[in-house]
Amino acid sequence: MVRVGIVGDGYTAAELLRLMVLHPELQVTYISSHHNIGRRIDAVFPQLTGFYDLILEPTETQRMIGLCDAVFLALPHGASIPLVQELTAAGIRCIDLGADFRLKDPAIYEKYYGLAHTAPHMLPDAVYGLPEVYREKIKQASYIANPGCYPTASILPLAPLLKKHLVDTQGIVIDAKSGVTGAGRSAKEANLFCEINDSFKAYGVGTHRHMPEIAQELCFAAGENVQMIFTPHLVPMNRGILATIYAMRPSGVHPEEIRGALEEAYANEPFVQVLPEGVFPQTKWVYGSNHVHIGIWADPDSPRVILISAIDNLTKGASGQALQNLNLLFGFDETTALTAPGLTP
Amino acid sequence: MVRVGIVGDGYTAAELLRLMVLHPELQVTYISSHHNIGRRIDAVFPQLTGFYDLILEPTETQRMIGLCDAVFLALPHGASIPLVQELTAAGIRCIDLGADFRLKDPAIYEKYYGLAHTAPHMLPDAVYGLPEVYREKIKQASYIANPGCYPTASILPLAPLLKKHLVDTQGIVIDAKSGVTGAGRSAKEANLFCEINDSFKAYGVGTHRHMPEIAQELCFAAGENVQMIFTPHLVPMNRGILATIYAMRPSGVHPEEIRGALEEAYANEPFVQVLPEGVFPQTKWVYGSNHVHIGIWADPDSPRVILISAIDNLTKGASGQALQNLNLLFGFDETTALTAPGLTP
Amino acid sequence: MVRVGIVGDGYTAAELLRLMVLHPELQVTYISSHHNIGRRIDAVFPQLTGFYDLILEPTETQRMIGLCDAVFLALPHGASIPLVQELTAAGIRCIDLGADFRLKDPAIYEKYYGLAHTAPHMLPDAVYGLPEVYREKIKQASYIANPGCYPTASILPLAPLLKKHLVDTQGIVIDAKSGVTGAGRSAKEANLFCEINDSFKAYGVGTHRHMPEIAQELCFAAGENVQMIFTPHLVPMNRGILATIYAMRPSGVHPEEIRGALEEAYANEPFVQVLPEGVFPQTKWVYGSNHVHIGIWADPDSPRVILISAIDNLTKGASGQALQNLNLLFGFDETTALTAPGLTP
Amino acid sequence: MVRVGIVGDGYTAAELLRLMVLHPELQVTYISSHHNIGRRIDAVFPQLTGFYDLILEPTETQRMIGLCDAVFLALPHGASIPLVQELTAAGIRCIDLGADFRLKDPAIYEKYYGLAHTAPHMLPDAVYGLPEVYREKIKQASYIANPGCYPTASILPLAPLLKKHLVDTQGIVIDAKSGVTGAGRSAKEANLFCEINDSFKAYGVGTHRHMPEIAQELCFAAGENVQMIFTPHLVPMNRGILATIYAMRPSGVHPEEIRGALEEAYANEPFVQVLPEGVFPQTKWVYGSNHVHIGIWADPDSPRVILISAIDNLTKGASGQALQNLNLLFGFDETTALTAPGLTP
Repeated sequence: MVRVGIVGDGYTAAELLRLMVLHPELQVTYISSHHNIGRRIDAVFPQLTGFYDLILEPTETQRMIGLCDAVFLALPHGASIPLVQELTAAGIRCIDLGADFRLKDPAIYEKYYGLAHTAPHMLPDAVYGLPEVYREKIKQASYIANPGCYPTASILPLAPLLKKHLVDTQGIVIDAKSGVTGAGRSAKEANLFCEINDSFKAYGVGTHRHMPEIAQELCFAAGENVQMIFTPHLVPMNRGILATIYAMRPSGVHPEEIRGALEEAYANEPFVQVLPEGVFPQTKWVYGSNHVHIGIWADPDSPRVILISAIDNLTKGASGQALQNLNLLFGFDETTALTAPGLTP
Repeated sequence: MVRVGIVGDGYTAAELLRLMVLHPELQVTYISSHHNIGRRIDAVFPQLTGFYDLILEPTETQRMIGLCDAVFLALPHGASIPLVQELTAAGIRCIDLGADFRLKDPAIYEKYYGLAHTAPHMLPDAVYGLPEVYREKIKQASYIANPGCYPTASILPLAPLLKKHLVDTQGIVIDAKSGVTGAGRSAKEANLFCEINDSFKAYGVGTHRHMPEIAQELCFAAGENVQMIFTPHLVPMNRGILATIYAMRPSGVHPEEIRGALEEAYANEPFVQVLPEGVFPQTKWVYGSNHVHIGIWADPDSPRVILISAIDNLTKGASGQALQNLNLLFGFDETTALTAPGLTP
Repeated sequence: MVRVGIVGDGYTAAELLRLMVLHPELQVTYISSHHNIGRRIDAVFPQLTGFYDLILEPTETQRMIGLCDAVFLALPHGASIPLVQELTAAGIRCIDLGADFRLKDPAIYEKYYGLAHTAPHMLPDAVYGLPEVYREKIKQASYIANPGCYPTASILPLAPLLKKHLVDTQGIVIDAKSGVTGAGRSAKEANLFCEINDSFKAYGVGTHRHMPEIAQELCFAAGENVQMIFTPHLVPMNRGILATIYAMRPSGVHPEEIRGALEEAYANEPFVQVLPEGVFPQTKWVYGSNHVHIGIWADPDSPRVILISAIDNLTKGASGQALQNLNLLFGFDETTALTAPGLTP
Repeated sequence: MVRVGIVGDGYTAAELLRLMVLHPELQVTYISSHHNIGRRIDAVFPQLTGFYDLILEPTETQRMIGLCDAVFLALPHGASIPLVQELTAAGIRCIDLGADFRLKDPAIYEKYYGLAHTAPHMLPDAVYGLPEVYREKIKQASYIANPGCYPTASILPLAPLLKKHLVDTQGIVIDAKSGVTGAGRSAKEANLFCEINDSFKAYGVGTHRHMPEIAQELCFAAGENVQMIFTPHLVPMNRGILATIYAMRPSGVHPEEIRGALEEAYANEPFVQVLPEGVFPQTKWVYGSNHVHIGIWADPDSPRVILISAIDNLTKGASGQALQNLNLLFGFDETTALTAPGLTP
């Protein structure tokens, strides 16, 4: 049994606990909290009544070092850095669900997150935990930067096309829509039910923190600079991201090549489904599942390509992918505890 | 023009402002806030962009005395009492949307609201602002206790039947369901979108503060003690209350008499609709409107009577009724600015 | 491997398929449809993309007899009867998710379903598939009447109390609220998104078909006649039933006995959780799970008892319970493929 | 009093009736239906209980000619053409809420709507009913093509910029999101509550019928060909459209000029609000109102311009705009019965 700890008790922690119920090789030995110290886990997450007996503890690395082989960190930005330093020094594998180790350039981190990175020397060795791109590196990693939800939905459809130069590197538009769990569980007026229900809005227009993360990975895929714009929106639903991605097809590229490249790239991936011609995904199809659905529109009469991807932001966009990474790290079957289809309707 | 002030900037304040846009005889001259002092009203409520130029002020009675003929108060319990004292002393009509003047018995107030009433001498003169029951008193009132949302939905179907002894005074069950605006705009984890959406729950089981208010008015209607239980529930919707009311029909009463009594009681009421046989209301039918819809099930084979009422908790359940009361107080047509039908779909 | 067939392709069929993905001992070999014959299952339920390769077939008992050891039937009332007759005659175990074998009295069936039962001789041997009440009979059954969703939520909290005479058999009120999947997938104006969203209503007032089913089982539990009324409501959510149950506590019964009896009855049940004092369930806590949560309000000052139960209408209220029954029928661990907690948030 | 008829009884008809309750100069004398002939209007739309006594009639032009001065038509495409011919010949003003008279080129109509236009000679005289662009022509029109909902949301932010050459005519991306009322009231599986709730999807990718309508009006504004792509999406909400529009700012144009041009264009428009810097609209802000909110992102560091507009698809996107057009046609104040702010929360 691998002994697992969780730092944080927000929605991604709940999702980790939900998924790990089905994992035969893991034992959750530790969970920490800021606001709920001393409470039972099923008082904080009553859906777990009958499943776990954990009590929420303060965040203490010595406890984790004694109790855990691996730790998931789900903290506000900046807070993971010292913990990952201490834990990895003690030989504990860390999977950070926050943003602290995703951006390779500390200057960009500082610009978008508003604080200086306190351990920039750790950035080169952090592995970006997108298994479809970095599987082999993940297996060897000592700490993993679990990707953001929007980046997961944006990179998977675009990376194979950029790598093969099948779409232009300029003028990419990513118009993404997310469920509200992406905003976390903290009590803010803007996230009250009555402020969100039966309504729709954009946010972070021109400035969202996932933009440089997407750009970084698209540049790596393309091997050159990529110019794109990203706008997130908030959908009155709990879970799910749908990314509508507009790119330009160079004149020498046939529409069939677009589909062909994506089908080839994901033919053996357990969690990526390229949908048939004319089928475009709905977020509910991957609700609570670790799957990614991708629909493609490419037409001989138009230089435009439209790619539409759907993920569950808490599963493939956060905790499911984190567990997929842990499976890779510890040599388990990559899909262990992640084989459930979308919960629909 | 009657000059109107509003104390408070929550959802009921927004609803008052929305409704008063259509009132030709009122001018809003003052609005106060705790958290948003100095902000424009359309920064706090962007739906009012282009409609009002007000700036939110601190709560100061001298300002109100100079600027207002009438004041709506929408405050946490306890807070209205000193304001209503000062304002009525200065001759300003007060309509209190809170609970401070609804209960005639200060001991019950203290039991349910957890604090001693600081002006119990004012309770006898407070008029309970349910026009269908107290219309003539309202016209003469100097301060009005605007009814709670659940009480409005519960009293209107039952009062005429209790008055005529057509249902038993014992064993009444009121199972009520509300939209989430009833919980106000304050940022609490329990009212976050993701905690409410696609889910349903009861709350305040056995202990809700509207229970004694309902009981008081049902007793007044019956002229004797009434034994009832009331359970509120939270529906994943913004507005609306549906109350499902179970009462027993005494053996000598014919089912037709139930319908007859309600149709007669509300024949000339502008805002109460007794629905045809077999039709039961949906909350959306009165969305944003001041109307009350009542459906009746009474069957010769059963001693049970089921009454189902629907209101909009923010309109007839709060701000619409408050404006109806102001219309009565100032001699305007009672329906002024309140003639819109439900916004459906 | 047990070979399983499904007759019908509505929401309960989709839920069966979702759950059986995780079952190591079952193989789905057959699924039939009325409207979608010849289509791939993942064209009808795209959330199953990558999980099943089935093609929807016409409903033919000979095919089932050749391909299946057990068959789930999810059909409109009346339609299961001839199929269950033929299949059980051929030795195939049947679990009927419809209503055809639930009511022991064919006259009541005819009154509520509007058609004469065509095989009343089969009713005595049909086992009502509520494992918490009929576990041993289920193991021996050749055909099982899987309970309705409202009855499951209503019977489980009441049966142990009626059996021990801890609540009166008269005057029970069951006010139940359901998500919209309970209405099935057929295209009706009343179930369109815009007719349901942000709204709430009662339906089937005084006449719902689940009333006699609840009454039958409550009478069996009490060993005498039970007088109750049941009103269902529609909540703008996909899944979940919350039943608010009002009963009277006889004067000699202490409130503690109520809680004690329920805790004792369900101490060893894998799927029933009696919640702590003061905790009342939310439907989302059992979303997609086979669990039942029960909250209890019983107070020395009041003769009322309020029981609040929550289930997922598609899981414990239909397909999960059906799979639980199949596990019992074939000697698998009763919880196989049913161990997931509620998907929240 | 102007006597008004309505042909059709879907959601746009309900919205017309809701709005006209507040119009002092109109009398609804006629409404026709296909499926509901002979029913009372408040049986079909119970929210109108107490407001109208109309009975739904068959569609007969002779009845309309006798009873109406103006007729709103809300019919499937193709069906309005013969009615508008007959009615205008009899001197009755027609406002067609369908698509039959919007496209100037009958070949494009045929391509996108799949049928030949039966009265192409009428197209040149049809006035496109967007008052902010064609106000003077509308006043003189004998028949008006009321704009589509997506076109209204798309054209208003772009037209003033294209007219002044402040954005490129190439590479425009319109990513639009709509509430579900846009799909009408007909019973289709895809529009059931459980298929839409808590989910999000794109539809009509690359092929939606509003694309040529948007393109036509953008070309008229620019005075040259405009190349754009339009993708609609479905949001789990009843009402509202949010259009996120991406355009390129030519190098000689300063970001301030973008804002300046829109503020100037709409300074005196009663229904268009250009929001302050940094404020982007939410659809709920215009819920049930005839207003349009426009937010602007233009940054010196980027050649991109993002325009975000919000309307209510049933009000400014259909019936509210139709009533605005009728006000213009008959010389009433343009805002009569349209002065309500958004119903929020």
